[in-house]
Amino acid sequence: MLDPAKFRDLDPGPRVLMGPGPSGVSDRVLRAMSTPCIGYLDPYLFKIMDETQELLRYVYGTANPQTLPVSGTGMAGMEAVLVNLIEPGDKVLVCVNGFFGIRLCEIAQRLGADLVRLDFPWGRAIDPEVVRGKVKEVGPGIVAGVHAETSTGACSDLAGLSQAAKEAGALVLADCVTSLGGIKVGIDENGIDAAYSGSQKCISAPPGLSPVTFGKRALEKMEARKTKIPSFYLDMTILGNYWGAKRMYHHTLPVNLVFAFREALRMVAEEGLEARFARHKLTHRALVAGVEEMGLSMLVPKAERLPMLNAIKIPEGAEDAKVRTALLKGFGLEIGGGLGDLAGKVWRVGIMGEVCNRRNVTLFLAALQSVLTAQGVKVGSGVEAATAVFEGA
Amino acid sequence: MLDPAKFRDLDPGPRVLMGPGPSGVSDRVLRAMSTPCIGYLDPYLFKIMDETQELLRYVYGTANPQTLPVSGTGMAGMEAVLVNLIEPGDKVLVCVNGFFGIRLCEIAQRLGADLVRLDFPWGRAIDPEVVRGKVKEVGPGIVAGVHAETSTGACSDLAGLSQAAKEAGALVLADCVTSLGGIKVGIDENGIDAAYSGSQKCISAPPGLSPVTFGKRALEKMEARKTKIPSFYLDMTILGNYWGAKRMYHHTLPVNLVFAFREALRMVAEEGLEARFARHKLTHRALVAGVEEMGLSMLVPKAERLPMLNAIKIPEGAEDAKVRTALLKGFGLEIGGGLGDLAGKVWRVGIMGEVCNRRNVTLFLAALQSVLTAQGVKVGSGVEAATAVFEGA
Repeated sequence: MLDPAKFRDLDPGPRVLMGPGPSGVSDRVLRAMSTPCIGYLDPYLFKIMDETQELLRYVYGTANPQTLPVSGTGMAGMEAVLVNLIEPGDKVLVCVNGFFGIRLCEIAQRLGADLVRLDFPWGRAIDPEVVRGKVKEVGPGIVAGVHAETSTGACSDLAGLSQAAKEAGALVLADCVTSLGGIKVGIDENGIDAAYSGSQKCISAPPGLSPVTFGKRALEKMEARKTKIPSFYLDMTILGNYWGAKRMYHHTLPVNLVFAFREALRMVAEEGLEARFARHKLTHRALVAGVEEMGLSMLVPKAERLPMLNAIKIPEGAEDAKVRTALLKGFGLEIGGGLGDLAGKVWRVGIMGEVCNRRNVTLFLAALQSVLTAQGVKVGSGVEAATAVFEGA
Repeated sequence: MLDPAKFRDLDPGPRVLMGPGPSGVSDRVLRAMSTPCIGYLDPYLFKIMDETQELLRYVYGTANPQTLPVSGTGMAGMEAVLVNLIEPGDKVLVCVNGFFGIRLCEIAQRLGADLVRLDFPWGRAIDPEVVRGKVKEVGPGIVAGVHAETSTGACSDLAGLSQAAKEAGALVLADCVTSLGGIKVGIDENGIDAAYSGSQKCISAPPGLSPVTFGKRALEKMEARKTKIPSFYLDMTILGNYWGAKRMYHHTLPVNLVFAFREALRMVAEEGLEARFARHKLTHRALVAGVEEMGLSMLVPKAERLPMLNAIKIPEGAEDAKVRTALLKGFGLEIGGGLGDLAGKVWRVGIMGEVCNRRNVTLFLAALQSVLTAQGVKVGSGVEAATAVFEGA
């Protein structure tokens, strides 16, 4: 028999989420999420769904009608974009400059793609010139790349990637999981044919939804498919009939997550995209100034850095896991470790959405100094340099 | 430019969710859900994940280690079970007695199954004797069926289905979306090899998670696969490494939904499964007594009825959508319409989990009488007969 008394009330304690995501969620969004659930065919829900799409188009910078949150996390979004657009035998060029580029390859292969993998060093951006050459050489039908590599903190040039693909008539797919809401994505301006993101990064909604967008050329490719889309759950042609005018039942929408997501998007719109991007950039500059003042260094060259995800090289003498555990236990502060080849070599510090502010950066710098000092690793203070950036000195 | 002021505060108004799901969510579960998010590698989260699995095993009646909520709705659970277990060319027998049986066929076909579809009348249970004969005739590797057909309210015999499949050595897969937490599922006792459900039915958590369970024979089938599982997001061999001891990153868990789901399972455990089943049965008997006293009739023969989902034949003269709209607008009361062939012919009234109580049944009977009377359809009161059942007369 199960003793129900052994399961206690939830009590995780306070956290400052400065890892690679999820980021912190505002009280306002948490309250919206706990609005009592309503049915998936409720007329009020349809209104909320329409508004969510309108807000999402604004954040994505697109007029694509087919712009909506898929009912799964960012990985579901990645799979949704690929499963709808790839048919077995399709030649797909994937640009890999980190862990999530490899994920793209993994999923493309499972779908039977004729995969061409183009590697760039981890911690560097995708080089559009190299892509251009490869596209000419192999003539892919689809080119895919990661805008903001969460595993390294490198920012790639979406416009350059897109132009390189377009010259050969290929569709271009972009992973915008970590970029959306923190830096400009500009789907239409950059000619991106399909993209996916996550609710829990710079939009600062709880995890569980993955906003996707499909442009005209992507929809044409779907219509021209010779094979059925292998996934029913992620089939955009049917899912679009639920989000679109027909309102045909497809699955039970995670209503509370949609409530939360809309509220978070509303907060993005209230702040304004430009102001939000500027906030991320300023906070990032302060973080880097502080980190460098402490005597630590960044993984990614300055011109290729993301603002919202900062990979800091672990200094000699510091023990990766021990430092992160001390930050979590002593300060309720979560940062991320390295993924793949970077495991044990970098810390990943996220300043995404709600989390991205002066208080958290100052706390992080001071807490890191405190933990490293306590563990016998000599570093200086980073607060003065960060302050100078915030004060515009 | 987007004007953020046009998006107003969420305010759906009060609802009593007596449709086919989602069901009502308790305040306690809503509060648990709005606990601030934590990271997907947070040690506290691992403890909560372990507890969620333990509670889920109790509700499913299984010792299967591979028992966990997939990060998507019930449809994702259906797809998770099929995508892991079906390889192209596998002979799969699907028993169809409603809309969700057809969905099983649809997904099995997309996965390249050699599909054998065995139809039963909508509104009736799957007949295990007929299944036994068909299994002998075609020799499938997998037999699948729906325990609680949400589209009709028919309850099938899991033990009978399982025995029929086992005689030929086939794996048996069960859709337990609407049954789990409302009637006995008994995975181990009934020899079910794999099953899926939804968080938002009789467990009364918000929609967005799909609890699945895989037994030993199912895992062996997965290990013996010749082809890769086409979905990465739903690949249980990798997902199991995140939920299991290795804690390997697979995707960002929808942490707040897991918080809510655990709390709802905890409430199920506190009530006790037997008491919960008895509550559903009693409330169902009262509902049926009231409906019949009103002069209406049920779609499903008495012996094959589900307690938590009640399909009521729409009486002559009543207009389906007009009645449902009046219930929603006048009483905040949601009931469901018919799906597929039953559209316009039945109303589906759910009494699932939190919603399943005397107050709601009494409200439903009186509100339906009020709406039908106002729309010129002559019916009697059902309150007296329902009261007699509740009072044990």
